[in-house]
Amino acid sequence: MKIAQIQMPVSADKFANIQRACSMIRWAGQIDLAVLPEMFCCPYDNALFRDYAEVEGGEAYSAMSALAKEKGIYLVGGSIPELCEGKVYNTSYVFDPEGKCIARHRKTHLFDIDVAGGQCFRESDALAAGRDVTTFETPWGVMGLCICFDFRFEELSRLMALRGAKVIFVPAAFNMTTGPAHWELLFRQRAVDNQCYTVGTSPARDNVASYTAWGHSIVCDPWGSVVKQVNEQPQISVTELDMERVEAIRRQLPIMSARRDDLYEVRELS
Amino acid sequence: MKIAQIQMPVSADKFANIQRACSMIRWAGQIDLAVLPEMFCCPYDNALFRDYAEVEGGEAYSAMSALAKEKGIYLVGGSIPELCEGKVYNTSYVFDPEGKCIARHRKTHLFDIDVAGGQCFRESDALAAGRDVTTFETPWGVMGLCICFDFRFEELSRLMALRGAKVIFVPAAFNMTTGPAHWELLFRQRAVDNQCYTVGTSPARDNVASYTAWGHSIVCDPWGSVVKQVNEQPQISVTELDMERVEAIRRQLPIMSARRDDLYEVRELS
Repeated sequence: MKIAQIQMPVSADKFANIQRACSMIRWAGQIDLAVLPEMFCCPYDNALFRDYAEVEGGEAYSAMSALAKEKGIYLVGGSIPELCEGKVYNTSYVFDPEGKCIARHRKTHLFDIDVAGGQCFRESDALAAGRDVTTFETPWGVMGLCICFDFRFEELSRLMALRGAKVIFVPAAFNMTTGPAHWELLFRQRAVDNQCYTVGTSPARDNVASYTAWGHSIVCDPWGSVVKQVNEQPQISVTELDMERVEAIRRQLPIMSARRDDLYEVRELS
Repeated sequence: MKIAQIQMPVSADKFANIQRACSMIRWAGQIDLAVLPEMFCCPYDNALFRDYAEVEGGEAYSAMSALAKEKGIYLVGGSIPELCEGKVYNTSYVFDPEGKCIARHRKTHLFDIDVAGGQCFRESDALAAGRDVTTFETPWGVMGLCICFDFRFEELSRLMALRGAKVIFVPAAFNMTTGPAHWELLFRQRAVDNQCYTVGTSPARDNVASYTAWGHSIVCDPWGSVVKQVNEQPQISVTELDMERVEAIRRQLPIMSARRDDLYEVRELS
């Protein structure tokens, strides 16, 4: 399973961003699946999310659907601001090689942070939160999906893994405080805990933006090794995932199978 | 809260091991709490656990109780093979400054591993598994306790944190395969996920033993930084934990408080 992570720069021009995303995916060559970063067509700015938002089936959605079909690939559409019943969500759509939308994840954990001497940002001032654990089916197995801050909450990844997820895709934009401290660590340990691949895809860094993304799009394998990690520059990062490694690691070091489900339970509430 | 981690060598002589543990704790100077490593009075060998086992109140237990009282400290007694109703458990006792046993944890996840080209070990051939999530109260707050392989199962740590644990103590003996791959990573990420201190205490390395421990006793803070990590040699590692850092980190980066407990639940089954 060959994936392309599109670590793209994000400008203030929504249509130019959509165009760039499509161009970079076209340049990625022969791949099975492409992943875009969080908020790839909108500056990461509370004041702008509503202006850039679209209802389901809007311009970014349509362009991604068409491109997935054109290229015959799965497309994990990073995220965009979605407008629904007056609320704005941070939403990721997934398209299959026919261009059909097969999954939608609305960010469930909004990023409110106040690090002394570091970042201060309250996403919940501008966005509404989703309420789903999201997985989807592919020929390579079940895949999980969440957005950025969601990934810090271990229950969400565990629930995806319990549904059978072999890869967890995380469009994300860590910042210059949390990136160096926690980005690689988090992707490695979630991979070890759930014995699956983890794929974090960030926008490229823009040092003059109001929110500066860490970049460093990453792929970790089920042993927790970093298979690929790029720097902060714009780039297309193509990686082949050896899907048999998931079962191999699970046989060698039984974690998923050795859980004491007679002692504890993680469950979705509805 | 000043703690001493006793990274001691373990010989085949049970009484010499108990003696050494006591001596090293006496040498640690002015401390509030001492932690011993996993199986500190018994070679880490399936064939020997039953021979070295004792019923509750036996020699190792009594020595630890007496020492906690003598020194006026909390003592997290690493672990020893415990004999109960014909079964052998890998058990950790905790003593308060009066010498009273205030907690008992029996390892709940037994370590069965078969890494291609690496370690092969089946703890479940010789040991029975416990079934408790273990925490205890101290003047510095609630403390959590589990043993080695237990720590790989995120639910256990999460349940301790939900009970209010500010430090998770983990007597452990990772090996030469899993140690370099996962030891530091695991202690760092569990600390970040649960916004607490994590304290891993290993035996010193013995290259001629049948099971070679990684050593590297470690303390991580609630931000995931490694506060202290030693090498593989015998030593007493004394560290002051700034307990106010737990609340400070929880305020700055809300993870424990931002959990979506309307969407998922981790619970103990009984």
